[in-house]
Amino acid sequence: MAKHPTSGMDRTFWALADPTRRGVLQRLMDQPGLSVSELAGSFSLKLPGMTKHLDVLSDAGLITRTKAGRTVAVTLSATPMQEAIAWLNRYERFWSVSLDRLTALVNEDGEQ
Amino acid sequence: MAKHPTSGMDRTFWALADPTRRGVLQRLMDQPGLSVSELAGSFSLKLPGMTKHLDVLSDAGLITRTKAGRTVAVTLSATPMQEAIAWLNRYERFWSVSLDRLTALVNEDGEQ
Repeated sequence: MAKHPTSGMDRTFWALADPTRRGVLQRLMDQPGLSVSELAGSFSLKLPGMTKHLDVLSDAGLITRTKAGRTVAVTLSATPMQEAIAWLNRYERFWSVSLDRLTALVNEDGEQ
Repeated sequence: MAKHPTSGMDRTFWALADPTRRGVLQRLMDQPGLSVSELAGSFSLKLPGMTKHLDVLSDAGLITRTKAGRTVAVTLSATPMQEAIAWLNRYERFWSVSLDRLTALVNEDGEQ
């Protein structure tokens, strides 16, 4: 998958597959409305580097950029993340059950 | 992000950013131990195409392949998904609150 995905959940998960982009989302949760330059500074990136990451997050619908004078303020958008969370949560029960089974197997093994 | 990620959650989210790979995980939840050829058939893919997807899922630690004679059985692994779910769930409260705020704003607007 070297091409940039063009639809829904593909874009969301693609956007999340990078530590800087996950970090940006975390920062914006604590401080909504940070400017692009403030975000760049936080991650020791130059403006073009941060803009590239923000483009990916924006294409995925995870952030909104609003221009006020010479400053661009960045805020989080909720909807696409909800879909990704819903998808993963459908599997949460399975993963929990699997871990329980694994624990049971390990314990069983220890008892032999 | 055109390069293949090499670490933890990057790999998990990268693996999830494709509808076929999410589909494979769903199939394996319902029918653990399906063979590579059965999976290829389900998604109308040739063996090499399915193998490529399984390689990405395997690199992310999301599946395990076990060879028995001439058949390779595929099963799900739980651990990496747990980490991704935990990461997203930390944000779930924020996203829910945002949607509540949005609803409140829309209602407020309608009342004016």
